[in-house]
Amino acid sequence: MLILGIDPGYATVGFGFVRYNAPRFAAGQYGAIITPAGDPFEKRLETIYDSVCTLIDRNHPDAVAVEKLYYANNAKTVIGVAEARGVILLAARQKGVPIYEYTPLQVKQAVTGYGQAFKAQVQEMTRRLLCLKSVPKPDDTADALAIAICHAQNYGRRRVVEPRLVVPPKN
Amino acid sequence: MLILGIDPGYATVGFGFVRYNAPRFAAGQYGAIITPAGDPFEKRLETIYDSVCTLIDRNHPDAVAVEKLYYANNAKTVIGVAEARGVILLAARQKGVPIYEYTPLQVKQAVTGYGQAFKAQVQEMTRRLLCLKSVPKPDDTADALAIAICHAQNYGRRRVVEPRLVVPPKN
Repeated sequence: MLILGIDPGYATVGFGFVRYNAPRFAAGQYGAIITPAGDPFEKRLETIYDSVCTLIDRNHPDAVAVEKLYYANNAKTVIGVAEARGVILLAARQKGVPIYEYTPLQVKQAVTGYGQAFKAQVQEMTRRLLCLKSVPKPDDTADALAIAICHAQNYGRRRVVEPRLVVPPKN
Repeated sequence: MLILGIDPGYATVGFGFVRYNAPRFAAGQYGAIITPAGDPFEKRLETIYDSVCTLIDRNHPDAVAVEKLYYANNAKTVIGVAEARGVILLAARQKGVPIYEYTPLQVKQAVTGYGQAFKAQVQEMTRRLLCLKSVPKPDDTADALAIAICHAQNYGRRRVVEPRLVVPPKN
């Protein structure tokens, strides 16, 4: 399956495609959508929306994984980030791609096995799992790839733990 | 000029058209976009986006006036409201309608002359200014009409206070 991971923002939106054939990961296209600070805010939203639509049209992901946003994230920017997140969710919805949301704790847990891991550790594990030569820059891109890996792990786990009917052997 | 006022939300989006021929106001279509609580969040965003696009296509407003959102508004819902606000701004941007944002204080000031006015006072003045028989329901609709009136007032004021060259009479 091909997963598009997205780290939402209004100045920088990290994105990364991860192909998952259990237990192997492979990185596809990754990078960041940058919106000029001088643009009116609604134009920045439009740039983000158009870019996400283009990424989905060109790559046909099976799932979009987006980081969950919390009120406590950053008081000054949280409203703008949420507004950008709204247009990202809209783009995925309109393109018919299922959306999955993960908390930072879930992402750290999935990539490093420890929910309180440091950023550098998450980035280094993301690099290793995707067999990349260096940690992708900016940080938002590395974060987006980690979110995609998190979805792959959760998707895999869900498949494994599907309820099965176990019939005891007859004596 | 025809103004579309919008009070953003994800469960209920108040909207109201106000036609302004200074100093007269007249209400056009008004109401609320309601999204079912049982729908996935991204579907609710899509419903809001589609509805705002339809409202703009059918009425061709000259401006969209939207309430500004603050971090302190409501901790529990602010992220969802901001996400909905993002798709509202996107719709207006894509339709080429200029967007104006007003704080609750500016709206109260414009409608009642007092920035700390009670909700009931704002609603009653909105009803009077638009010559309506009763206060529109839900509250979000009345709020949206008040936001449109606020833009009309500000737009009018801007036109009046445009810098003019005053030449003193010669002796």
